[in-house]
Amino acid sequence: MGKLVRVGLIGCGTVGQGVVRLLHAEGAEIERKTGLRLELVRVADKDPAQARKAGVPEERITADAGAVIEDQDISVVVELVGGTGAAKDFVVQSLRAGKDVVTANKALLARFGREIHSTARANRRCVAFEASCGGGIPLILPLRTGLIANRISAVYGILNGTCNYILTEMSQKGKSYAEALKEAQASGYAEPDPTLDVSGGDTAHKLAILASIAFGCDVDIDRLHVEGIQELDAQDLAAGRELGYVCKLLGIAARTDAGLSLRVHPSFVRKDHPLASTSGSFNAISVYGNWVGHTLYYGRGAGSKPTASAVVADLVDVGLGNAGRTFEQFRILNDVTEPPLYASMDGLRTRFYVRLMVADRPGVMAQIAKAFGDKDISLRAVTQHEPNLTNGSDAVPVVVLTHEAVEGHMREALREIAGLAIVRDKPVMIRVVEEHEEYTA
Amino acid sequence: MGKLVRVGLIGCGTVGQGVVRLLHAEGAEIERKTGLRLELVRVADKDPAQARKAGVPEERITADAGAVIEDQDISVVVELVGGTGAAKDFVVQSLRAGKDVVTANKALLARFGREIHSTARANRRCVAFEASCGGGIPLILPLRTGLIANRISAVYGILNGTCNYILTEMSQKGKSYAEALKEAQASGYAEPDPTLDVSGGDTAHKLAILASIAFGCDVDIDRLHVEGIQELDAQDLAAGRELGYVCKLLGIAARTDAGLSLRVHPSFVRKDHPLASTSGSFNAISVYGNWVGHTLYYGRGAGSKPTASAVVADLVDVGLGNAGRTFEQFRILNDVTEPPLYASMDGLRTRFYVRLMVADRPGVMAQIAKAFGDKDISLRAVTQHEPNLTNGSDAVPVVVLTHEAVEGHMREALREIAGLAIVRDKPVMIRVVEEHEEYTA
Repeated sequence: MGKLVRVGLIGCGTVGQGVVRLLHAEGAEIERKTGLRLELVRVADKDPAQARKAGVPEERITADAGAVIEDQDISVVVELVGGTGAAKDFVVQSLRAGKDVVTANKALLARFGREIHSTARANRRCVAFEASCGGGIPLILPLRTGLIANRISAVYGILNGTCNYILTEMSQKGKSYAEALKEAQASGYAEPDPTLDVSGGDTAHKLAILASIAFGCDVDIDRLHVEGIQELDAQDLAAGRELGYVCKLLGIAARTDAGLSLRVHPSFVRKDHPLASTSGSFNAISVYGNWVGHTLYYGRGAGSKPTASAVVADLVDVGLGNAGRTFEQFRILNDVTEPPLYASMDGLRTRFYVRLMVADRPGVMAQIAKAFGDKDISLRAVTQHEPNLTNGSDAVPVVVLTHEAVEGHMREALREIAGLAIVRDKPVMIRVVEEHEEYTA
Repeated sequence: MGKLVRVGLIGCGTVGQGVVRLLHAEGAEIERKTGLRLELVRVADKDPAQARKAGVPEERITADAGAVIEDQDISVVVELVGGTGAAKDFVVQSLRAGKDVVTANKALLARFGREIHSTARANRRCVAFEASCGGGIPLILPLRTGLIANRISAVYGILNGTCNYILTEMSQKGKSYAEALKEAQASGYAEPDPTLDVSGGDTAHKLAILASIAFGCDVDIDRLHVEGIQELDAQDLAAGRELGYVCKLLGIAARTDAGLSLRVHPSFVRKDHPLASTSGSFNAISVYGNWVGHTLYYGRGAGSKPTASAVVADLVDVGLGNAGRTFEQFRILNDVTEPPLYASMDGLRTRFYVRLMVADRPGVMAQIAKAFGDKDISLRAVTQHEPNLTNGSDAVPVVVLTHEAVEGHMREALREIAGLAIVRDKPVMIRVVEEHEEYTA
C-alpha cells in the first residue's frame, strides 16, 4: 500500500466536485503510479448537498470549514471556495494549523500572494497553485522548474476562456458583444454575472501570478493596466479581420527598457501570430526565455475536469514532498522577492488600430493625418469606407493602422482628434501586438 | 552560498558547449533563484578543443570520459555524447559509480531505457532526460508530473525539426525534397548525413520515450511502424494543400481497442488541425488526457541553447533532490512497467490520400473505384487532373481521399491497383490524420 496522504477539501462547487470524482475514479491508478494514496478525509461546503452530489459519503461531509482545518488527521487542505474573503481565512488558518495548501484561487494569490506565501514559510508549509492559471495546463510547473535556467523576457497569454469564447464568436460569426455574451452564458462558458471575466480582472489575476514567478518579483495587482472586452464593437473585429488581424484579450508581461510592462487589453494579432489560432474557450500562453526561446502551452483554461487534473497533480507533488522542497528552497515567490520596476503605459511602444467616425467631407483626411503627425505617429495603412447612406448619418468610418508609436502620444492625438468638429464619435483604439522577438537581450 | 552540486560533463559538442555557456552566464542567477550552485568540475571530450571553444578552463578539460566518471567529487554526470555506443557505457558506469545522470540521448533511452533505468534504480541513483524529447520544451515534466492524474489516450508529436523544416519548405514554397534538404543542410537545420532524421528514426526514438511515460509501459522501439519523408513528392504536398491539408511527419501513440498504436509517418492534417501551424524547425506535441482534455506544448525541439535549457533544468531538479524522489517513487519508467499490447498497422483505421498515375482512357475511374469498393474502402473525394501533354506521357494523376478505412484493406487494394494495366507508377499513399477526439473513454 502506498503512503497515505490525508486530504481535506473546502469548497465543493464545480471544481471541488471534479476533484472528488477524479480521486474516486483514478485514486487506485494514481496510487499505483506514484506510490501515494490520496484519501479525501473530509469535505466542507456551506451547502452540504454539493458534496453529496459528487458522491462524498455522508460521514465525511461538513458545513463547517473549521472542521477540516482543525482535523489533526489532515495534512493537506484543498481550498476551492474562491474569492478573497472567507477563502483567505481558510488558507491562512490551514497553514497555521500545519497543513499544506493546494488552491486554484487566482484572486487570492494575485492580491495576497505575499502574505500567504510568507505565512506558509513561517509555518514551514507550502502552497501549491498549478490550478490557479491556465486550468489544467501545466504552466506554473514549467515556469517554476522547467524554464528555471532562463531569464524570461515576456509572457503573453490568452488566460480567460470566457473572453476568448466571446471574441471568437464575435470574430468568426460577426455577432455583437451582447449576443455572444448571452450565448456564452447559455452554453455555460460565462457566469450569470460575467463582470470579473469580461472586465479583464480574472486575466489580470492570472497575469500577476505568472509575472511574479516568471520575473521573480512581487507584482502589485493594482499596478496592472487592465481593459476588458465589454466595449468592443463587432465592426472593429470585422475591420481588423479584413486587414488580417484577430482580436484576443491578452495578458502581457514583458521586460522593457523602462521596466516591466504589465497589461491586459484587447489586442489585434496577425492571423499567423502564435496565439491567433487559439479559439473558443481554450487558453494559450507564450513564454520567451533567453535560452529556450519561444515556448507555448495550450489547453483548457477552466472547467471542472481540467482544473481537477491540476489540483490532483499538486496533491501528488505535495504528497511526494517535492512541492515543499521547491517552495522552501526557491526564491521566486512574492514573499522573498522585491517589487518590479513598473513601466508606465504612457511610455509603451506599440502599434495601434484606430477607427474614427468622421464627416464625409473634403479635407477630413488631412486634418486627421496632421493630428497624428504632430504627435510623431506615422500611419501604415488608412482605409476609408463608403458612407452608409441608409442610416441618414453623414459619418463614415476611417480605419488607421499605425507604425510603432508611443502610447502617451497616441492618447494625446486621440484627445485632439476627438475634439475636431469633423469627428462624430469617440475614437476607438485597439493595440496591435506583434509577435515577440524570440531572443532578446 | 547555495548548496554545491558538482557536475561532470561528457561530450562537449554543440549542446555540451551550450550547457557550458549557460552555466557560465546564468550560474549566479540560478544560484540566487534555486539555492543551488551548479559547478562544472570536469569536461570530457575526445577532442579537447571543443571544450576550449566553450571557454572551459584548461585544468578542467580532459579527453578521457573515465576521468569524469571516476572523479569522487562529481555527483551528477551530464552525458551529451549521443548514440548507443560509448554513451551507453558512460551512462551505465556513471550510475554504477554512484552518480546521477542527466542526458539528452533519445536513441539510448529509446533502445536501452529498461537497462539504464534499472541500473539507476539498483544504484539508488536517477536518470533525468528532459532534453531527450522536444529540446527545450518542458515535456517530460508535464507528462510525468503535471498530467499524473490522467489516463492519456494519445500523444501526437511533431518531434523532429529537420523534417518539419523540410516539409514546410516543400509545402509553402513548392520545393522538391532534394532542394529542401540541401537548403536545410546549408542553414544548419540538417546534418551532413541526415538519415536518422529524415528516415523517421529520431522521431521514433522520441515517440518511444514519450509513449513509455504517457502510457506507463515498456515500449520496444522495434515494434514501432516507421516511415520517413525521403520519398515524398512535392506534387502530393501541393495536391494536399489544394484540398486543405498540410503534410507533417507525426509521431503518434494512441490507445485503441486493438492495443497501443505506435507509428511515425508523413501525415496530412487539415489546415486548422492543432499541429498544422507548427512551421519550420519548431516542434509541437499534443497530449490528450481523460481529465485535462487536449493540451499542447510548443517550442524549439533542438539546438544548442534550447537543449541546454532543458539539461540545466534537469541539473536543478537532480540537485534539489526532486528528480531522485520522483524517479524512485513513481512506477512509470520502462524498468518497472510491462510491455504494451501493440496494435497492428494492418488493423489501423484511418483516412487516406492516394495518388495514382493512370492512363487517360475511358473506364479507368470505374476500375479504380471498383478496386477500392471491393475492399470496403469508400471514397470521399476524387480529383482527376488534365493530362500534361507536353511530357509525352499519357499518364494523368488521380487523387483520391477516402473515408476511414482499414489499413490492411488499403494495402490490398493498392496492390491490386498497382497491377492494373492502366496504372503507370507505384501508387502514392499518405495517411490523413484527423484531430483526436478530446475526451475518449
